[in-house]
Amino acid sequence: MEPRVSLITLGVNDLDASLRFYRDGLGFPTSYTAEQGVIFFQTGGTCLGLYPLDKLAEDVSPDLVPERGQFSGITLAHNVREKAEVNQVLDQAVAAGATLEKPAADTFWGGYSGYFSDLDGHLWEVAWGAFEFREDGSLIIP
Amino acid sequence: MEPRVSLITLGVNDLDASLRFYRDGLGFPTSYTAEQGVIFFQTGGTCLGLYPLDKLAEDVSPDLVPERGQFSGITLAHNVREKAEVNQVLDQAVAAGATLEKPAADTFWGGYSGYFSDLDGHLWEVAWGAFEFREDGSLIIP
Repeated sequence: MEPRVSLITLGVNDLDASLRFYRDGLGFPTSYTAEQGVIFFQTGGTCLGLYPLDKLAEDVSPDLVPERGQFSGITLAHNVREKAEVNQVLDQAVAAGATLEKPAADTFWGGYSGYFSDLDGHLWEVAWGAFEFREDGSLIIP
Repeated sequence: MEPRVSLITLGVNDLDASLRFYRDGLGFPTSYTAEQGVIFFQTGGTCLGLYPLDKLAEDVSPDLVPERGQFSGITLAHNVREKAEVNQVLDQAVAAGATLEKPAADTFWGGYSGYFSDLDGHLWEVAWGAFEFREDGSLIIP
C-alpha cells in the first residue's frame, strides 16, 4: 500500500448548493455539474469530492443510517503561506455561506488559525505557521 | 484560496494503537511518536494526521461534544493502479486490525472497490478503475 490518501468525499445534503459553495465561493476548480450526481474537484494532492450523504452511506452499507453526530471526528485543513491569509480565507468562506466556528487566533503550537464549517457542518481549519511549504503548496512533514 | 486540502486529521481514541495501525500495519511513514501527542504522516499530496478525539473537538470549540455518530459523513479513498491490489490492500488493513465493512466487488461505475474501517470507525474505500494516475500516484480528475 503506497502511503497516500487519493480522495476525500464529503457527504452533503444539497449537491448543487455545495457545488456552488466550493466552486464559486471558494474557487475550487471542477468540470462536474450537479446533474452528474457526484462532484470531483481538481484539488492539490488529494482530490476532494462531494456526494449525497444518503448515497455515500449506502455505498458503504445498506445498514448504515445516514445520520451524522454533532462531531464527525474528522477535520480538513487548508494551510496558508502568509499569516494574513488566514482571515482572508475565513472571510471568503463566510461570504460563501460557511459558518465561522472559531475566529482566527494564536495557537498553543505557535501558529495562527481559525475554523469554519461548510454547508453540512464539515469542519475546515485555516492555519498558518505549522509546516514549511513545497513549491506546489503541499506541506513538508518532518 | 488555493484549491488545496493540506491536511486531514482523524480523531482517535488510542493514539498509540492508531499510530501502530497506520505506521506498522499500513506502512505510512512518520517520524512522530505517540509521546508527541499528535502524529503526522508523510502521505502523498495531502498529509494525514492523528489526534485524540477529545482534543480535536476541543480545538474547534469547548462546546463541541466529542461523540461521533454512526456515520461521519466523510470517506477517505485509497485508489490503486491494478485491480488485484484492491483485495491485497483490504487484506493488509484487516491483518492490521481494521474491520472489513464491504468486501471488494464490481461497482456501478465500472470499477472495483471495497471498504474497511480503521480502529475508530473511520471509513476507507479501496478502489480501482475510477481515474487515471499521475506518476506520483495522484489522480487525474477530468
